[in-house]
Amino acid sequence: MKIAILPGDGIGPEITAQAVKVLNALGESFELESADVGGAGYAAHGHPLPQGTLALAKAADAVLFGAVGDYKYDALERALRPEQAILGLRKELGLFANLRPAILYPELAGASTLKPEVVSGLDILIIRELTGDIYFGKPRGVRECPDGPFAGQREGFDTMRYAEGEIRRIAHVAFQAARKRDRRVTSVDKANVLETFQFWRDIVTDVHKEYQDVELEHMYVDNAAMQLVRAPKKFDVIVTGNMFGDILSDAAAMLTGSIGMLPSASLDANSKGLYEPSHGSAPDIAGKGVANPLATILSAAMMLRFSLGKAEQADRIENAVKKVLAQGLRTPDIYEEGTTKVGTEQMGDAVLKALG
Amino acid sequence: MKIAILPGDGIGPEITAQAVKVLNALGESFELESADVGGAGYAAHGHPLPQGTLALAKAADAVLFGAVGDYKYDALERALRPEQAILGLRKELGLFANLRPAILYPELAGASTLKPEVVSGLDILIIRELTGDIYFGKPRGVRECPDGPFAGQREGFDTMRYAEGEIRRIAHVAFQAARKRDRRVTSVDKANVLETFQFWRDIVTDVHKEYQDVELEHMYVDNAAMQLVRAPKKFDVIVTGNMFGDILSDAAAMLTGSIGMLPSASLDANSKGLYEPSHGSAPDIAGKGVANPLATILSAAMMLRFSLGKAEQADRIENAVKKVLAQGLRTPDIYEEGTTKVGTEQMGDAVLKALG
Ligand SMILES: CC(C)[C@H](C(=O)O)[C@@H](O)C(=O)O
Ligand SMILES: CC(C)[C@H](C(=O)O)[C@@H](O)C(=O)O
Repeated sequence: MKIAILPGDGIGPEITAQAVKVLNALGESFELESADVGGAGYAAHGHPLPQGTLALAKAADAVLFGAVGDYKYDALERALRPEQAILGLRKELGLFANLRPAILYPELAGASTLKPEVVSGLDILIIRELTGDIYFGKPRGVRECPDGPFAGQREGFDTMRYAEGEIRRIAHVAFQAARKRDRRVTSVDKANVLETFQFWRDIVTDVHKEYQDVELEHMYVDNAAMQLVRAPKKFDVIVTGNMFGDILSDAAAMLTGSIGMLPSASLDANSKGLYEPSHGSAPDIAGKGVANPLATILSAAMMLRFSLGKAEQADRIENAVKKVLAQGLRTPDIYEEGTTKVGTEQMGDAVLKALG
Repeated sequence: MKIAILPGDGIGPEITAQAVKVLNALGESFELESADVGGAGYAAHGHPLPQGTLALAKAADAVLFGAVGDYKYDALERALRPEQAILGLRKELGLFANLRPAILYPELAGASTLKPEVVSGLDILIIRELTGDIYFGKPRGVRECPDGPFAGQREGFDTMRYAEGEIRRIAHVAFQAARKRDRRVTSVDKANVLETFQFWRDIVTDVHKEYQDVELEHMYVDNAAMQLVRAPKKFDVIVTGNMFGDILSDAAAMLTGSIGMLPSASLDANSKGLYEPSHGSAPDIAGKGVANPLATILSAAMMLRFSLGKAEQADRIENAVKKVLAQGLRTPDIYEEGTTKVGTEQMGDAVLKALG
């Protein structure tokens, strides 16, 4: 089985290196191959998603992705900026289902800005549609405003859209995921304003007929943003579109106060996937050896479970991570008095040791 | 001066009644006239925004709005549902600038789900553009998907758009508001993905040249959602589009834990405005006399300040509200042990008395 390793920019290479160490220690015969992506792709090959990198990702059984982005690429035109790599990979690989767990580890309850009673034991799964919506809809651009009080001026515009089949397949993913959890799905939309999301609501309601053992609730996105702050533990699975999912999944991750712990999976229709930490490239701390590698290591665990059919190895890694937390080891982002502060490599080594 | 009073549905009439009491006690010669809106408009006249109500709102110098929406109207087609009234009023009256303060009163710090040190002293002003964006953009609807892998299927679609002049005027509102505060503006966009918001960023940057005494920062909407949870006190003024503003202003309001305290103003180009509490119609507690009228009373204060040129009367009301909080009076939504629980009317009476 072939795994593409795309470290990227900022802390990407350091954290990915720890996950690679862990993968290599499992005693499996994975073939790991690395390639440049993001700013590193642009620097080496003039494009954030170089041809060779895309070809490798397509040929591989799964992709482990670090993070992309760095201030030094801010001045580039949009098509060449690092984040285009991740948008390109999602679209080219058909990675329509983004699974982002927001879990609060009991040992890290203090890291949240929310009161412990509001977030302790938090365990939400956000499922974000990832290849549709206003992210890729056409037409888009800057044009002359055709009518109304601003006619004749320049205007920026984009197209939000969801086809029936796109909504159906992500709804199935959500209902099936809920069956392995608490059997409750909250579909987040803005059906009171948007045609796209009235249509979304109608289709999700229809798919739900096949899952009568799962409870379905519809919620407006503004209310969902409030409920995430007010009573996040009331959610089980949240399913939503690309744009709303971008906002809500980051808000939910931040509720835990330890975004450095949260992995993510982006899956295609055949369970091939791209796995990456929920946090970004943090260029300000890159190269200092202080970044938290656990989200990337846990992303590797998700990869073993969802794309490589190695659920036991995934369990091994997840248990090893719990063990190092129980041992009191903490990178600076999750450090609290009374625990032991360690760097990126030490944390990776500790997980390795805890694998047994 | 003529004020249109639109109580609406749910708790709308009860809370509006308290604000009217306060307005009448100021000793000014305001002419107050009421009309049905939302579900009440539909029930009485077959439309959520009846002709007469719209005419009254247009003729008035300012509008005091309660809240709209009730479960009993859920089955109506979208065009007749209560929330269409508020969308219609915004568009018809040209209310493009929505000002939503998120303030945490020291006495209510405990009501937040966030840790006191994260939110105590919170004072953010969110300025949401209210008549553009994907809320009103055309074309929109359900059509046959024209191309791509879902060609031939039905798809829901909407148009996001902002013309240059729309962005300019809301940017001016934000920079001018910042001058009366801490002189810092965070413009929230998604310039890395959306053409509309790359254009937004360019125009806001251009308008900023006229306000070199104000600091401008650009932030992606997903990051803004995170920073609101992580360190909300770092913000001063946030300016953003209609859709992002809908989500972020509700999240920010919920940070305070006392959304029953938060007023809002929606202004046109000549400082005529519609004023309403930030919370909804809460049909579950309607008619029980327990709703918190303070957000509506504080909305009346904003109305006096922004539309009626009566800043001193606005101060009087705001001071009266602070006084009743200091006296320990609390409606159930903000009640804590050691304070005195009161109902809607008692709270209104207490403010009246505190006016002096
Ligand atoms: C970098 C950006 C294009 C991307 C997105 O908006 O999807 C990021 O925010 C994410 O959530 O992975
Ligand atoms: C009721 C709804 C149409 C409205 C909106 O989305 O603008 C509401 O959420 C608000 O923020 O006033």
